[in-house]
Amino acid sequence: MPHAELEPGASLSIQGEEAHHARRVRRLDVGETVEILDGVGGVAIARIERCEKIAKREGWRLSVRVESVRRDEPLRPRIEVYSEPPKGHDLERMIDQLSQLGAARWSPLICDRSEVSPRDGKLDRLARIAQEASKQCGRAWFLEIGSAIRFEDALRAPDGSRVLVCHMSGSAYRVGADGRTVRLLVGPVGDLSERELDLARASNAEVASFGPLVMRIETACCAAGAVVMACERAP
Amino acid sequence: MPHAELEPGASLSIQGEEAHHARRVRRLDVGETVEILDGVGGVAIARIERCEKIAKREGWRLSVRVESVRRDEPLRPRIEVYSEPPKGHDLERMIDQLSQLGAARWSPLICDRSEVSPRDGKLDRLARIAQEASKQCGRAWFLEIGSAIRFEDALRAPDGSRVLVCHMSGSAYRVGADGRTVRLLVGPVGDLSERELDLARASNAEVASFGPLVMRIETACCAAGAVVMACERAP
Repeated sequence: MPHAELEPGASLSIQGEEAHHARRVRRLDVGETVEILDGVGGVAIARIERCEKIAKREGWRLSVRVESVRRDEPLRPRIEVYSEPPKGHDLERMIDQLSQLGAARWSPLICDRSEVSPRDGKLDRLARIAQEASKQCGRAWFLEIGSAIRFEDALRAPDGSRVLVCHMSGSAYRVGADGRTVRLLVGPVGDLSERELDLARASNAEVASFGPLVMRIETACCAAGAVVMACERAP
Repeated sequence: MPHAELEPGASLSIQGEEAHHARRVRRLDVGETVEILDGVGGVAIARIERCEKIAKREGWRLSVRVESVRRDEPLRPRIEVYSEPPKGHDLERMIDQLSQLGAARWSPLICDRSEVSPRDGKLDRLARIAQEASKQCGRAWFLEIGSAIRFEDALRAPDGSRVLVCHMSGSAYRVGADGRTVRLLVGPVGDLSERELDLARASNAEVASFGPLVMRIETACCAAGAVVMACERAP
């Protein structure tokens, strides 16, 4: 999916990976129910009405009818992670891990010393990975992939969000988001520039450290995300 | 390395990856200094006395003389992570990430529903990965790779350690290790058995959750490690 039109009584068709998973891994059949997520809070229970094998390479198609729909709230706190994209597969694995940790959004961060800026095609692919990973851990709200943003623009978060610049020079992270959105900025391999650190210190952002050692980008993003989620999580 | 005999005045020879890194990446030459870690707290500053290219495939050999040695304390709290080994490359990446997070030890955990138990050769390879990753983030104490341990034995930690069984059924993690060793047990893909969860609840261990979603093993290990390090870290 996502299915924009989740409502009781609606008929939907499921193909591709998900149909394969339902038939071949979970061995579901006509009369059984599946959970369908639209990625923006909608969670439907739907009953399988028909399973058919379509053209050889396409695999299975399931016809289902929605029986009930509930709307889930997004996870709190809302955690946004902005970083230079790690190289190669490390980026995809990071997106997968951030999905499991419950982050709401990841965007490429453009810094003075950035070397990597993903093309739009790459971002589309990441959005599909985020969607797949989000479904696997049953997230009603999928991890969003945002477009690239410059460091100085990312510092200016709207409406009282808490902005944390993750950096060894900062003091250890302290609890205190009080349910606000938390935006985490992680610098590039070549480090943030002095200009950027000065900008951060002069803004309302906090410079915070999330561990005693230097971490690579993907480890820093996941560590900071995990720490904020565990410490600030609404009960 | 590791070099067991770090003492001022000692002559050492550096070959392989490290010699290559010193020459080709850092472009160091005779007269310059390198930092040498023995992995058990020793940090030496040594001056390069000779650089020579040995047999074609073997690369460089650096002869260095130790000028000073200091002994660093291990990171506090001591964090031990025990889990089923994730499959394939995920295990190696996890060892790398745990090194960056500052964990002291990882061991394979054998549970009722475990499917994977790494051979000794694999553990040796992991120890080399841990050593490499530990050096890259400048750890004076390398991440140790322990041998496999059964769940019930891992529950019995010595001398007042805090044992946390990471599981969705637990209550959210609460700070309070007070400098004690923290041992984190992460169950297998097939989940901990009821017998194991009962054992954990009947012991002095705490069943604790480190996030709102189901995580894969490697994500759970790193999230729990990051959270404990950030929350319990000695100032």
